[in-house]
Amino acid sequence: MKDIQNLRDDRRINIRKVGVKTISYPITVLDKEHRLQKTVATVNMYVNLPHRFKGTHMSRFVEILNTFHGEINLKSFHRILEEMKARLDAEAAHMEIEFPYFLQRDDAPDSIGTERYDCRMHGTLKDCDDLVLEVTVPVASSPYVHAQQGGLPRSMGRWGSARVAVRFNHFIWIEELISLIQKGIVLGHGAPESVEQVTRNLGRTIADHPAISWYSIVVENLADGYSTFAALES
Amino acid sequence: MKDIQNLRDDRRINIRKVGVKTISYPITVLDKEHRLQKTVATVNMYVNLPHRFKGTHMSRFVEILNTFHGEINLKSFHRILEEMKARLDAEAAHMEIEFPYFLQRDDAPDSIGTERYDCRMHGTLKDCDDLVLEVTVPVASSPYVHAQQGGLPRSMGRWGSARVAVRFNHFIWIEELISLIQKGIVLGHGAPESVEQVTRNLGRTIADHPAISWYSIVVENLADGYSTFAALES
Amino acid sequence: MKDIQNLRDDRRINIRKVGVKTISYPITVLDKEHRLQKTVATVNMYVNLPHRFKGTHMSRFVEILNTFHGEINLKSFHRILEEMKARLDAEAAHMEIEFPYFLQRDDAPDSIGTERYDCRMHGTLKDCDDLVLEVTVPVASSPYVHAQQGGLPRSMGRWGSARVAVRFNHFIWIEELISLIQKGIVLGHGAPESVEQVTRNLGRTIADHPAISWYSIVVENLADGYSTFAALES
Amino acid sequence: MKDIQNLRDDRRINIRKVGVKTISYPITVLDKEHRLQKTVATVNMYVNLPHRFKGTHMSRFVEILNTFHGEINLKSFHRILEEMKARLDAEAAHMEIEFPYFLQRDDAPDSIGTERYDCRMHGTLKDCDDLVLEVTVPVASSPYVHAQQGGLPRSMGRWGSARVAVRFNHFIWIEELISLIQKGIVLGHGAPESVEQVTRNLGRTIADHPAISWYSIVVENLADGYSTFAALES
Repeated sequence: MKDIQNLRDDRRINIRKVGVKTISYPITVLDKEHRLQKTVATVNMYVNLPHRFKGTHMSRFVEILNTFHGEINLKSFHRILEEMKARLDAEAAHMEIEFPYFLQRDDAPDSIGTERYDCRMHGTLKDCDDLVLEVTVPVASSPYVHAQQGGLPRSMGRWGSARVAVRFNHFIWIEELISLIQKGIVLGHGAPESVEQVTRNLGRTIADHPAISWYSIVVENLADGYSTFAALES
Repeated sequence: MKDIQNLRDDRRINIRKVGVKTISYPITVLDKEHRLQKTVATVNMYVNLPHRFKGTHMSRFVEILNTFHGEINLKSFHRILEEMKARLDAEAAHMEIEFPYFLQRDDAPDSIGTERYDCRMHGTLKDCDDLVLEVTVPVASSPYVHAQQGGLPRSMGRWGSARVAVRFNHFIWIEELISLIQKGIVLGHGAPESVEQVTRNLGRTIADHPAISWYSIVVENLADGYSTFAALES
Repeated sequence: MKDIQNLRDDRRINIRKVGVKTISYPITVLDKEHRLQKTVATVNMYVNLPHRFKGTHMSRFVEILNTFHGEINLKSFHRILEEMKARLDAEAAHMEIEFPYFLQRDDAPDSIGTERYDCRMHGTLKDCDDLVLEVTVPVASSPYVHAQQGGLPRSMGRWGSARVAVRFNHFIWIEELISLIQKGIVLGHGAPESVEQVTRNLGRTIADHPAISWYSIVVENLADGYSTFAALES
Repeated sequence: MKDIQNLRDDRRINIRKVGVKTISYPITVLDKEHRLQKTVATVNMYVNLPHRFKGTHMSRFVEILNTFHGEINLKSFHRILEEMKARLDAEAAHMEIEFPYFLQRDDAPDSIGTERYDCRMHGTLKDCDDLVLEVTVPVASSPYVHAQQGGLPRSMGRWGSARVAVRFNHFIWIEELISLIQKGIVLGHGAPESVEQVTRNLGRTIADHPAISWYSIVVENLADGYSTFAALES
């Protein structure tokens, strides 16, 4: 049984966010070559609540997700956020989706043909829309270094990863962003590489793209015991 | 060989952070009962660089860490950050340490006696020190519910976790913070629980503690396929 | 340069298995309701080598996998193993595939509608074929207990998982195996459950199925800090 | 309520194993240099039950573990298994312990000084004792290749891991086993390496050690997307 003290406390201690996390869900995303690609996502959905909020129906998040049958594109992303904001009477709505995206890569010498790229979309709807697209791309040594390595084990061509997040002015394919990152990574090849240098090269390439209005870059050199990394943001 | 164009670019595209990540390292932390506790940490160390920076010696991060032989306390934390800032000529220095902390729990009915709590410390040194201590504590059902459950499987007593991060005005033991969280969790027991209600109860308890100047709380109900959660911040 | 001693040693110290592991790969599996389901698998492929073997072309494993464009069914599984055995001149060929499989579940009260089941297929071709199909199904409390629980958090309905592996005499759908496991789990509901009792109930149900020639069962009660489990095998 | 049919079934469908899994527990192991090393283990304990078994007290596993206060050595390992076998009236008792073990490595050029080695002990007591000790050691390129690499990223010196499990006739330090594996790995350096060649070199080195009565070796080349591996067993 609640007394008046508790009621007063409830007004002071306000829930800021409430939602669901780590839902495993089959989704369909846009694919430049094949129109659509089916993959498996991990989904988080949550809202910022107004101060005088009195209990959420958690099941509504999943009900909304189910309405869209896993079709994820710019339009559905916006509509899911709108429904969340409306049905949960929220100040802001958020959805984060992580998924592997697969591309045929016949060109990459150490590729298995079907290359996996880990992607993430984070959308927010408050007064206006905000969407961040993030892709992680493996970083390999330059052809120059490859030639020198001779009989080295295959995996030594790859020494790390570049994780790039962008906001954009007009639509950009996942494939385009991956290509752009790969172009930035190989800039300056022929010279020895460092996480700092690859990060700067990437920054220069991405800063020049007309569709990209904001970016964040983390380049990591994955060692056994630990990693070294460099990061920058526009 | 760099040309003038590249040099100009280097000034524009500035590395923001550089460092080492996910170092597995044996550490010794303060233990209220036994003075010291040895455990195994995952360590991240990184710095914010000034604009005209020209290459980091990544090995220095590890050299500095080794100087302190894994002794982690408020004093050593500060000195590690100071050395990082000085030796890497940085604008700010950061260290994050995650580790399991073990406590004897003879009281908890479903405990194995030696209970694990996941802890995290995140320190920053810019102009002044900033330290955040975070602890994750399992959330169990109230004794009232336990009694009703009768022959239910043991694990059903636990339905989630509370992750609490705090900044503090004067020293606080990990044990104290754990006790405080456990006290906040059981507030209002006897009534059915929800992540929102447990979050509010916790917020009220922690807000009242004189040593704590800032807090952030996430209560999660861990289901098989996904989780529901509520969060608040002071 | 090798001397005679080394050559003799090479004959004594024989590689037993060689292959590729943890390939992330998009696959298509059979779906009873929708004919086909696209999902994302983790693939291991390896062979047992004859004694006088002199070096493997690791790239062949991936080449063979690519030939089948991710179509995984009993027939393609057999043909992949045959190609591995032939092209790598092996004594035996193995392929393990793990993937999430999604089913619409409108009946389950605590389901999100689209339920994930972790599946695994392990095929071996030596003199004859051998295929093991494994499915992991969440274990929830009985309706009887649910009613008693009243306002308990949603996740408390689920307390663990049943992992069942089977060999079969004639084709069995993943859906059928999942239904069979769910039927076995709820046997004896109304009474308090234990991992031992659920394991025995499941064993009885699966032993009675005419298509199943062998089975292995592990029932786990997933707690925060650790799990309890019971296991049996036909 | 059980009827006679069910009782008969219970005799036919026998639990084979029952126990506890993934207990996180602070332990103390033997250290050649410093006598004792404190670390954090993940513990599994389970028993094979006799046919006419009628319910286990799962809490006994943890009670037995607690009796030994985390002191893990050959003697305590044996006594824990004996207690499990006796108190649970079992046909066989098993304990698996996984833990990171840290060594000072001032010699390794790409080491952080404090090197982590993942260890595992698996003990079984049936009629007599059986203990398997397993250590995973990173595999780096030879100094010859290092010299050629010049400005390559640091992590490229490491390309994989060797996991070696042994049974032994008389006591062997973890340090000794690690040294032996490192000696086997660098055999034949100067020539290009492959997982098959490193596996054979290791096999030769370990087969020659008088204390080792059985061994199993897996050498893995860790790539981004997937791994290649070779394995052999004595």
